[in-house]
Amino acid sequence: MTTIFDAPEDFAATALAGFAELYSRHVRLVRGGVVRATAVPKGKVSVVVGGGSGHYPAFAGYVGPGMADAAVAGDVFASPSTAAVARVCRQAHRGGGILLGFGNYAGDVLNFGVAAERLRSEGIDVRIVPVTDDVASAPAEAHAKRRGIAGDLVVFKIAGAAAEAGLSLDEVERIARRANDRTVSFGVAFDGCTLPGAGGPLFSVPEGRMALGLGIHGEPGIKEEAIVSARELAGLLTGKLLAERPAGARRVAALLNGLGSTKYEELFVLWTTISRLLKDAGLEIVAPEAGEFVTSLDMQGCSLTLTWLDGELETYWKAACDTPVLKRGGEIRTVPATDTIANEDATPVFGPASAGSKEGAACIARLVGHVADALRDAEDELGRIDAQAGDGDHGQGMRRGSAAARDAIEYAVTAGAGAASALAIAGDAWADRAGGTSGAIWGLLLRAWSNALSDEDGMDEAAVVRGARLALDGVTRLGRARVGDKTLVDALVPFVETLEAAFAAGKPLKAAWADAAEAARAAAVATAGLTPKLGRARPLAERSIGHPDAGAVSLALVAGVVGASL
Amino acid sequence: MTTIFDAPEDFAATALAGFAELYSRHVRLVRGGVVRATAVPKGKVSVVVGGGSGHYPAFAGYVGPGMADAAVAGDVFASPSTAAVARVCRQAHRGGGILLGFGNYAGDVLNFGVAAERLRSEGIDVRIVPVTDDVASAPAEAHAKRRGIAGDLVVFKIAGAAAEAGLSLDEVERIARRANDRTVSFGVAFDGCTLPGAGGPLFSVPEGRMALGLGIHGEPGIKEEAIVSARELAGLLTGKLLAERPAGARRVAALLNGLGSTKYEELFVLWTTISRLLKDAGLEIVAPEAGEFVTSLDMQGCSLTLTWLDGELETYWKAACDTPVLKRGGEIRTVPATDTIANEDATPVFGPASAGSKEGAACIARLVGHVADALRDAEDELGRIDAQAGDGDHGQGMRRGSAAARDAIEYAVTAGAGAASALAIAGDAWADRAGGTSGAIWGLLLRAWSNALSDEDGMDEAAVVRGARLALDGVTRLGRARVGDKTLVDALVPFVETLEAAFAAGKPLKAAWADAAEAARAAAVATAGLTPKLGRARPLAERSIGHPDAGAVSLALVAGVVGASL
Repeated sequence: MTTIFDAPEDFAATALAGFAELYSRHVRLVRGGVVRATAVPKGKVSVVVGGGSGHYPAFAGYVGPGMADAAVAGDVFASPSTAAVARVCRQAHRGGGILLGFGNYAGDVLNFGVAAERLRSEGIDVRIVPVTDDVASAPAEAHAKRRGIAGDLVVFKIAGAAAEAGLSLDEVERIARRANDRTVSFGVAFDGCTLPGAGGPLFSVPEGRMALGLGIHGEPGIKEEAIVSARELAGLLTGKLLAERPAGARRVAALLNGLGSTKYEELFVLWTTISRLLKDAGLEIVAPEAGEFVTSLDMQGCSLTLTWLDGELETYWKAACDTPVLKRGGEIRTVPATDTIANEDATPVFGPASAGSKEGAACIARLVGHVADALRDAEDELGRIDAQAGDGDHGQGMRRGSAAARDAIEYAVTAGAGAASALAIAGDAWADRAGGTSGAIWGLLLRAWSNALSDEDGMDEAAVVRGARLALDGVTRLGRARVGDKTLVDALVPFVETLEAAFAAGKPLKAAWADAAEAARAAAVATAGLTPKLGRARPLAERSIGHPDAGAVSLALVAGVVGASL
Repeated sequence: MTTIFDAPEDFAATALAGFAELYSRHVRLVRGGVVRATAVPKGKVSVVVGGGSGHYPAFAGYVGPGMADAAVAGDVFASPSTAAVARVCRQAHRGGGILLGFGNYAGDVLNFGVAAERLRSEGIDVRIVPVTDDVASAPAEAHAKRRGIAGDLVVFKIAGAAAEAGLSLDEVERIARRANDRTVSFGVAFDGCTLPGAGGPLFSVPEGRMALGLGIHGEPGIKEEAIVSARELAGLLTGKLLAERPAGARRVAALLNGLGSTKYEELFVLWTTISRLLKDAGLEIVAPEAGEFVTSLDMQGCSLTLTWLDGELETYWKAACDTPVLKRGGEIRTVPATDTIANEDATPVFGPASAGSKEGAACIARLVGHVADALRDAEDELGRIDAQAGDGDHGQGMRRGSAAARDAIEYAVTAGAGAASALAIAGDAWADRAGGTSGAIWGLLLRAWSNALSDEDGMDEAAVVRGARLALDGVTRLGRARVGDKTLVDALVPFVETLEAAFAAGKPLKAAWADAAEAARAAAVATAGLTPKLGRARPLAERSIGHPDAGAVSLALVAGVVGASL
C-alpha cells in the first residue's frame, strides 16, 4: 500500500516537487508539470505528455533530450486539468507546434482536447495522439478505442526522437500515429494498489489468482485465472500480442513493464522465455527494455508491449535520449535553459465591448451567482448521490467550480468585459478550480456556449439558444458520452432539444427554458433506471445501479435555478 | 509476494541470465555472475562486488565503466559460493589486483574471504572491503560490525570511480575504506517479502506499524512503532544519521532507497522534507539519488544513506559512470571486450607427488568415501534437526558436498595427486557443490587441514593433528563463530583440543581421534541447551531453542565415521 505521505490531497504535487528537485539537471517545475531544464532549439516541435500521477516514471520521468519536452501531472489516477495542460504547453512551446501525447482515458481525452482547442485559439498548432495499446480493452478492429498502458513509453520515445531530429509537426504526428497503430500491450495483475490515505485497496485480486487485462487503474480485465508459471505467463503474454502481428513484421521493439510490486528479477526470469518465444516466431528483438515504465502505485503485475518496427520507427526507437527513466546512445550535448518560467496567474485582459454586451455580461454574472449559491446549498446532497457510483466528490467539485466561476465573471464585469468573454472566463475558472471530469465538462460547456455570444453585439434570445446547441456539441464531441451512459449528457440532450423546439415554436426564452429545465429534471430522475456506464473499477460501478446520476442531477438543478432567475 | 518464477531453485540463476541478455551492452554472463561487456585496460584495478540475489540492482546492476568490473550473484538472499567468487574474479582480473566489495554478512565474509585466500595463493593481490553502513545493527563505536545495506551503492560507486581513474590497488582500497567509514544508513520496513515458491512471507510487520532498522533480509531491527507521516519519517531517518555527523562535515552524498514495494512517488514526497532538514542542518547535498538501489524482493520500506564527503570522495561520487542502474556525466567511450569467457570446468592438473604422499591420498579418499556414505544415510535426520532453526536444507547440502568431495578425491588419486592436493581439491568440490554457509565452512576446513600435509613427504600422524588446528583456525577466523554460538564450532573446538591433548599425552592417532570424536559428540548434544545464535529472522531463530545444532551434529558424525575407519 502507499504508506509515505503527508496530506493525501497534496501527494501528487509534493511528489512532483521532490522529483523536480532530485532531477534538476533534467527538469524545471511548472505548476502542474515539468518542462526540460535544458535549452530547446527555437522552432522544434514540442512533445508534451501527461496524465494522472501514481504512474511514475510516467510521465515526468520521460522528459529530456530525445524524448518529451514537458509532462503534465494530474492528481493520483486523475487527469490533469485543462488549465494545467495549457499552462505547461505554453511554457514548452518553441514555435514549432505541439504534439500532445497521453493514454486514451475519458478524462485525459477531455482535458487535453479542450486544452488543445484553447491553445489553437491562441495561434498554437496542436496535434493530439492518444495512445491505444491495451489489447484487452477493445478488439483489434476498434484499435482507437483501446486504453493506453505501457505502450505510452514506446510511442512517446519514438515521437520525441522524431521531434528531436527536427521533423515538422505533420511528420512527428504521422510517425507518432504510426507508432501507436503498430503498438500492442497485454498485462496481468496479481494484486491491487492503495491510494494515499485510502482505508483499503482500490481493488484487489483474489489470492493465487491473476486478472488478465486488468487496467492500470483497476479497469475490468477480460478474465481471471489461477497464477501460472513464468513460462506459461510468457506464453500467455506473447500469444495475445503475436495474434495481432501484421503481415511482414520481422523486427520488434519490446518492453516488459512492472506495475510496482512485481520486481526486476521476476521480470528478468519472465524475459528469458519471452525472448525465446519471440525469436521462435521469427522476430528480431530490437533494444528491449525490462523494468518499471508505467506503474500503478504498488500494484502487483506486469505487461508486455510490442511495437512492430519498420525502418523509420526503428531509427527513432533506437535514437539517443537522456531522461530520468531512459538513457540511450552517446552523449547529448545540452546547455541549461534560459527562458524564465512564466507568471502563471497573470491578470486577464479583456478586449473592448459594446454597452449591450456588457449588459449581457452583468446578466450572466447574476445567474452564475444564483447557481453558485444553489450548488453551495446542494453540495452534501450531490455528494451523497455521487457516492453511490463514484468517490463522492461531485458536490465538492460543483461548489468549488461554480464559486470560482462567479468570482471570475464578477471580476470580468468590473473590468468591462463583454458577454462572450465573461462567460468564457467563467468556464475556464470553473474547470480549473473544480478539477476532475465534471469540472472539465462544465468549463467546456460554458466556453462552448460563449461562442454563440459576442462582445460587440447585444445579447439576444436566439443567440442563447444557439449557444445551448454549441455547448451540447462540445460536450459530446470531447466528452465522448452518449445518452444512456448515465452522465450529464442524459439531461443535457433533452434540455437542449426541448429548448430549441419550444423556442422554434414561438415561446419566449423564459418559457422555453422552463420547459427545457423540466425535461432535464425528468431525464435526471430517469437515469436511476439506466444501466450505469462502467466506471474505473467494477465493484464501485456496480453500486450505482438504481441511483440517479449526480452529473445529470446537477445539470437539471442548474437549469432550474437559471430558469427561475431569467 | 514473488509471483513470477519457474522452479524456485533456478530463480536467481534465471534472473541473472535474463538480466545479462537485456543488458548485453553492459555485461557478459559468467557462471554465477557477470563481467563487463566492454574492454577494460590492462593493469586497471578490478572492482568485484556481490552478494545474494533478490536485491536487484544490487549487485549485477552496478557493473559498467566507472563502477564495478564484475558482480557475483548467490542464490536468493544467500552468499555466492567461494568458487563463484573466485571464478568471476579470475575472469575480471586485468593484472592490477582486485578489490572485493560486499555487504557485511557472515556468509559473504566467509565466501569472499576464502575466495580471496585462494586467489592470493594464485598470485592475485586481493583486498576486501565489507560495507558496514547500517547504524541500526551496531553502535557507532563498533562500525566494523554493522551490516551493509544501501550504502553498498555509494561505497562501490566511489571505489569504482577511483579504480577507473587508474589509481593503484592500495589507493583504491584506502578510498573505499574511507567511503565506508564515512557512510551511514538507516531504514524502516512496513512489510516483509516472500521468497520465490515460499508458502508465506519470510517475515512480516503488523499492519499500521513500521519496524525501525529492520535488515534487508528481515534481520531484527531496534524497535517497532506506529507508521508516521512523511514529515515525521524524514525527521526520524535524518535524525538517526545526523547524530553520527563527523566534525567538519559540510557536504554530503544522499541516497534515498526503496526496498521494493515502496514506490518512487512516495520517495519523492519523503525527499522534500529530508532535503529541507539536511539543508537546515547546514549541509550541502551533492548529487542525491532517490529510487531502487538495494531492494529486498517486494519488501515495503525505505532507507536513507548519507556519505560525509571530503574533496576526494566527492570527486569519485560525482565521476562519470554508465551502469544499468546509474548513469552519470558525459559519454564514456568504450569498445566491446575481446577476451573470451574462460572454460570454467577445466580438468585439474596436479604437480608431482611422492609415493608416500600418494598412499596418504588414497587413505584420505577411503575415509571421504565412508563420510559420504554416512552423510547420505543421515540426510533426512540432519534435515529434520536443521528445520528446527533454519530452512532444513543442511542434510541435503552435506550429502551433496561430501559426494562431490568423494568424486573429486577419487579423480585426484587416479590422476596421481599427493595427499595435500587431494584433500584441498576435495574441500573445494565440497564447498562448490554444497552451497550455503556450511558448504563454505566444510570446504575451508578441508583446505586448511591440507596445508599441514605435503605432496612430497609421506603422511605422518603429527601432521594430521597439526592440520586439525589449522582447520579450526581457518574456520573461526573466516567464519567468525565462537563457542556458544550454536554452530559447528561448538563441536570442532573440543574435538581439536581433545585430539591435541590426547596425542601430546602419547596416545596413537586412532585412540586420540576416538577421544576427540567422543568430545565432539558430547558437545553437539550440549548445543541443545545453548541459546541459539540469532539467525536471519527472529521468528525462525526462536524455534531453535532446545534443539541441537545441525552443524555441530554433522561435525560429530563425520568425526565418528572417520575415527571408526582409521
